[in-house]
Amino acid sequence: MDNFKNIIRNVPNFPIEGIQFKDITTVLKDPVGFKASIKAMEEKLQGIDFDIVIGPESRGFIFGTPLAVTMGKSFVPARKKGKLPSEVISKTYTLEYGENTIEIHKDAILAGQKIVIADDLLATGGTCKAICELVESVGAEVVGLVFFIELLELNGRETLKGYNVSSLVTY
Amino acid sequence: MDNFKNIIRNVPNFPIEGIQFKDITTVLKDPVGFKASIKAMEEKLQGIDFDIVIGPESRGFIFGTPLAVTMGKSFVPARKKGKLPSEVISKTYTLEYGENTIEIHKDAILAGQKIVIADDLLATGGTCKAICELVESVGAEVVGLVFFIELLELNGRETLKGYNVSSLVTY
Repeated sequence: MDNFKNIIRNVPNFPIEGIQFKDITTVLKDPVGFKASIKAMEEKLQGIDFDIVIGPESRGFIFGTPLAVTMGKSFVPARKKGKLPSEVISKTYTLEYGENTIEIHKDAILAGQKIVIADDLLATGGTCKAICELVESVGAEVVGLVFFIELLELNGRETLKGYNVSSLVTY
Repeated sequence: MDNFKNIIRNVPNFPIEGIQFKDITTVLKDPVGFKASIKAMEEKLQGIDFDIVIGPESRGFIFGTPLAVTMGKSFVPARKKGKLPSEVISKTYTLEYGENTIEIHKDAILAGQKIVIADDLLATGGTCKAICELVESVGAEVVGLVFFIELLELNGRETLKGYNVSSLVTY
């Protein structure tokens, strides 16, 4: 797969007027393209020793779970407030309008473990930054972040400065 | 993996008093167990010719995407109202309290295609029944439904009567 952009659909004015939404469902629908995206994420992580893939709800599940299964790693979901059934650690962070809370199970990550975060999209990086802080709060380490798409003008890499960030496609 | 029940966590009184919630995050955290669950779903589908795995938001993404990638099939997400960016077909169905709407992209499934639905849990079967109706409304065919857990007392198989239903673990 040379160019994932050929199978990403552009949807104008979603979710609001003026936004050019990058729709990944056309990638998932393409069995060769979807498999190639997971393979390409795996290649970005070559040489990185890690234990766990964290995927943020819900599109992070779409790339994070095949990546974890393919690489033989643990998968830990990061979910919105109130969705996880057992004891959680949580982090509230500020969005452009309002705020959001992200949670992971308290016993899902142990001190000393090495974590990769996988998601469909690096936009402002706010959600992933909050997850990094949760990971570090239990004494574990974020050793990589891998995204299918990166929106360069939103400067997510600046928010995630100091971390090992990779993406497959940039706009 | 002989017994997935050993790695499923029981959480009493979630989401409400009196419910014994079956927590699959402890399965996902076990790399051997998670991989084995996908392999076991694949075995349930042996001999079934199909094109697409549909996974309902959001825990259906967790089993559906690794299954699609492993088996080289398309993945189509079924999402809650308003989440999919392009033109959708939607179905509203009744829950015990209130109602819910499930959507898939209108161009995601073509007439004549063969569909498998994968999800973490067969409870009442209401969501999957609604997805079956969406699939059939475009002239495609549901050839199998595979679940990680089935809650027998909720009679989901009755709701899904006439379909080829499999599950890995029953309670």
